Amino acid sequence: MSVAKISRYPVPEIKDLHADIREAILAVQEKAGFVPNVFLALAHRPDEFRAFFAYHDALMEKEGGLSKAEREMIVVATSNANNCQYCVVAHGAILRIRAKNPLIADQVAINYRKADISERQKAMLDFAMTVAANSGSIGEAHFETLHGHGFSDEDIWDIAAITALFALSNRMANFTAMRPNDEFYAMGRDLA
Amino acid sequence: MSVAKISRYPVPEIKDLHADIREAILAVQEKAGFVPNVFLALAHRPDEFRAFFAYHDALMEKEGGLSKAEREMIVVATSNANNCQYCVVAHGAILRIRAKNPLIADQVAINYRKADISERQKAMLDFAMTVAANSGSIGEAHFETLHGHGFSDEDIWDIAAITALFALSNRMANFTAMRPNDEFYAMGRDLA
Amino acid sequence: MSVAKISRYPVPEIKDLHADIREAILAVQEKAGFVPNVFLALAHRPDEFRAFFAYHDALMEKEGGLSKAEREMIVVATSNANNCQYCVVAHGAILRIRAKNPLIADQVAINYRKADISERQKAMLDFAMTVAANSGSIGEAHFETLHGHGFSDEDIWDIAAITALFALSNRMANFTAMRPNDEFYAMGRDLA
Amino acid sequence: MSVAKISRYPVPEIKDLHADIREAILAVQEKAGFVPNVFLALAHRPDEFRAFFAYHDALMEKEGGLSKAEREMIVVATSNANNCQYCVVAHGAILRIRAKNPLIADQVAINYRKADISERQKAMLDFAMTVAANSGSIGEAHFETLHGHGFSDEDIWDIAAITALFALSNRMANFTAMRPNDEFYAMGRDLA
Amino acid sequence: MSVAKISRYPVPEIKDLHADIREAILAVQEKAGFVPNVFLALAHRPDEFRAFFAYHDALMEKEGGLSKAEREMIVVATSNANNCQYCVVAHGAILRIRAKNPLIADQVAINYRKADISERQKAMLDFAMTVAANSGSIGEAHFETLHGHGFSDEDIWDIAAITALFALSNRMANFTAMRPNDEFYAMGRDLA
Amino acid sequence: MSVAKISRYPVPEIKDLHADIREAILAVQEKAGFVPNVFLALAHRPDEFRAFFAYHDALMEKEGGLSKAEREMIVVATSNANNCQYCVVAHGAILRIRAKNPLIADQVAINYRKADISERQKAMLDFAMTVAANSGSIGEAHFETLHGHGFSDEDIWDIAAITALFALSNRMANFTAMRPNDEFYAMGRDLA
Repeated sequence: MSVAKISRYPVPEIKDLHADIREAILAVQEKAGFVPNVFLALAHRPDEFRAFFAYHDALMEKEGGLSKAEREMIVVATSNANNCQYCVVAHGAILRIRAKNPLIADQVAINYRKADISERQKAMLDFAMTVAANSGSIGEAHFETLHGHGFSDEDIWDIAAITALFALSNRMANFTAMRPNDEFYAMGRDLA
Repeated sequence: MSVAKISRYPVPEIKDLHADIREAILAVQEKAGFVPNVFLALAHRPDEFRAFFAYHDALMEKEGGLSKAEREMIVVATSNANNCQYCVVAHGAILRIRAKNPLIADQVAINYRKADISERQKAMLDFAMTVAANSGSIGEAHFETLHGHGFSDEDIWDIAAITALFALSNRMANFTAMRPNDEFYAMGRDLA
Repeated sequence: MSVAKISRYPVPEIKDLHADIREAILAVQEKAGFVPNVFLALAHRPDEFRAFFAYHDALMEKEGGLSKAEREMIVVATSNANNCQYCVVAHGAILRIRAKNPLIADQVAINYRKADISERQKAMLDFAMTVAANSGSIGEAHFETLHGHGFSDEDIWDIAAITALFALSNRMANFTAMRPNDEFYAMGRDLA
Repeated sequence: MSVAKISRYPVPEIKDLHADIREAILAVQEKAGFVPNVFLALAHRPDEFRAFFAYHDALMEKEGGLSKAEREMIVVATSNANNCQYCVVAHGAILRIRAKNPLIADQVAINYRKADISERQKAMLDFAMTVAANSGSIGEAHFETLHGHGFSDEDIWDIAAITALFALSNRMANFTAMRPNDEFYAMGRDLA
Repeated sequence: MSVAKISRYPVPEIKDLHADIREAILAVQEKAGFVPNVFLALAHRPDEFRAFFAYHDALMEKEGGLSKAEREMIVVATSNANNCQYCVVAHGAILRIRAKNPLIADQVAINYRKADISERQKAMLDFAMTVAANSGSIGEAHFETLHGHGFSDEDIWDIAAITALFALSNRMANFTAMRPNDEFYAMGRDLA
Repeated sequence: MSVAKISRYPVPEIKDLHADIREAILAVQEKAGFVPNVFLALAHRPDEFRAFFAYHDALMEKEGGLSKAEREMIVVATSNANNCQYCVVAHGAILRIRAKNPLIADQVAINYRKADISERQKAMLDFAMTVAANSGSIGEAHFETLHGHGFSDEDIWDIAAITALFALSNRMANFTAMRPNDEFYAMGRDLA
């Protein structure tokens, strides 16, 4: 395991954190077996930590029209377009697990148009890439295309909002030089 | 005043909102004299509303090395690059007020390099524009340039994090077709 | 009023100008109440001054299928894409006045797709943006789309030629660091 | 000689033109041996014709710090970047003649960095390409670089203004589908 | 004739080359009347030389659904987009000769949409430009469009493979600063 | 193992191939334990197959100043920029093995600036990315920077030529929809 720095900024000791943050971190550690570095890197700014994970959970953990694997596809595809190492590696692992598919994360990251996903999912990612790169151009035609693939207006909000949240997250990870945990790289690669 | 739609999505009645959201909205109404549409548009999703404004306040309302006007400059410059009508118009108004300068918002939005701001502020906006458009390229050299202008590492986090939050916000406003309140356009234009 | 430089280049005294140029400037001063800086900045080169304003008047002052407000929309939208502070601010003021609409200039500058204008006007601006950014791609399909919105071939010439003239004008203003007069920023904001 | 259309728009008969335009055209025909199509295509709009050629002559025919060949280099390099067939072909011919060099026009059009020109001329074209593509970024550093190559502020105005005029001209030629005269292609190719 | 360097790298003497390479070069010299510089520049690396010309001949010399002039159009259009002086000048000459058309090479290089070629050829070049600039976006729709113009799947392979080979070739010529022979510039310009 | 199509084009049976191609394929199968799909997909065109692998071996298998892992880094970084699924996945596997590092391929693919590689290797990849995306801009300054990191002119040829070969290869894989073998995804991920 590497001992490389996980952020360009100071990383607090878990024991020194506010109780709510410490508990959130210990809970994810219990579940994942390790502490994903994003929790430690963002804990440098407790209020921003709380807001970020509240936003994250509101979009990624709730019930809704998009499957959890589909939400991770959005993260992985747009994060590679933004050259965000942390988000592609960490959410790639989660995508493999949620989709129970060891190939899908690399496929979606590099070129979702060639991935083993449905036409509906490709349309979802077409829209996410537009939100990521050129949101000013969004108009009625985008909604009609997505409606044609069976997405509701609330599903479209989810696609766009997840893309928007990771537009934030990618930029945070990039300027802090946030390092993905070594554990993520191989997770979920031995499925099926 | 126009009666145009303020969002492509349903906008709740204030009376129907959760108490915490309703109170937040009434507080801003009391202060501003009207309810900025972003509050109504985002209230369609209460959990996201709470997370967004928690994040916003953590960055925009706290004490710190950047003046409040400087924070608004970051929002205005990067939001015009993202073609976000709501953010340029609303935060342009706030910038005029905070900077006590009726010209500065339009200058910064259209071309901050020609604005009546300091070289230090131009360096701040150079970096913000890189975070907005090409965050994957950020490296040591950017930090050195900003240190040379007197920005601390914590100031740099603030610049980048504000840019990142409005990367999110611009995309939300663009896909929801969020409409700036008519009141914002002329606010702060009659300052000395 | 600011006393900032209005051009990186020498600005002649009005009294030292050739009679025709001096008269043109005094006429606009009489009408507008002040001398727009573009007249003073370009007077540094009298022959270019004469050619520029002859071109300008040939397109902007004549009768034709485009309303005068529509012509200003073209200027404002393409000038923001070119980061031209002078043109967005000065022609934004004229647009507000000609359209009798205090909101329209900022809307069109930041994102004309979300402006309070007709579908026909949005098609006009789609074409103008293509002329501004990628004129080599123009072909039959663009003419057909515009004909479908009721534009004649002569109207299309007007849209393209106005865009082309401000492609020139934006570049002149940008390299000379031409400064918009302070008066323009608030003009036309109290209409209706 | 081809009989292809020279413009998407109606082209007037020389005999039907206003006297001043007809005389200008006959003069160039006498000098060149043929009428360059730009004169016929723009004659569709007499006032714009007059303004365009007044502007052209003010920049391209006057005395000044840039040689006439250098002015044509600016036209050729920026017009290829704008995919303007008329301007590259016609001004390429003029460049070959003015530089007395049969190779230079193609070299400058395709990649001026590899052309048989001086470092000073490459710096001139670096700046012209910035004016053509990204004039909003121009600042003090560009002027310093050019001063270092011996260009005066008035020379810099000439470089930028020629680029700006052909930003206009390229767009006019592109939307009108202006066709270069067949004669231009081989002109000046047999120079020593 | 110029005596400028033909490559940034050492250029071997023909007499010092391996027999197969020397014979290939003498054969082309016999046919063309001079040795195109690409043969000398690439001979610096004999194994790469052999592979390059084997690839070149496999695509450019074989029988197939694309005429030899059409193959050169692909080279010329995509090489100008890549600012490759050697490829535009040398293959422009070959295109003029193969198409028996003195105008076509400059037209296709600068803007193939305005060239004197068929709609089918324009569709071929649209696809080639996509392969050159954005091959990751290629999908079923591109194949359907080309089928509609009568191209078979094998023709489409040829279009894409020629574009791909010159993606390689353009980059080789650009980093080695490969100089086109002076002879190419005027070749084929006096055809009927 | 998936039974998805490995190319949009017909894939020959190994038994039907020319002897030299069949032997090359059986040799790689013996070494790797499976036949990488690029061999089968390109075998559709035997002459191009032979030229491609001759080129590949001339650059990737020879001795030279770049380590074999460094050559694979060039492939992986530029292939992700070109959205080439086959090349990132297959050469990512080879990179992990050659570098004996299970993390390096994903790091280099997503953002080589943040990878666990040396400053010299980052300079190598900066140059490769310029060759991949903007080879027309290459000039003396690029060579000086690389010399400063200890690269010889022959090393620089290798960097550029590998990038150029995969510019070709990425485009071939993209238009044929070449599918990476499932085996590649997990290869080399369990290295110490």
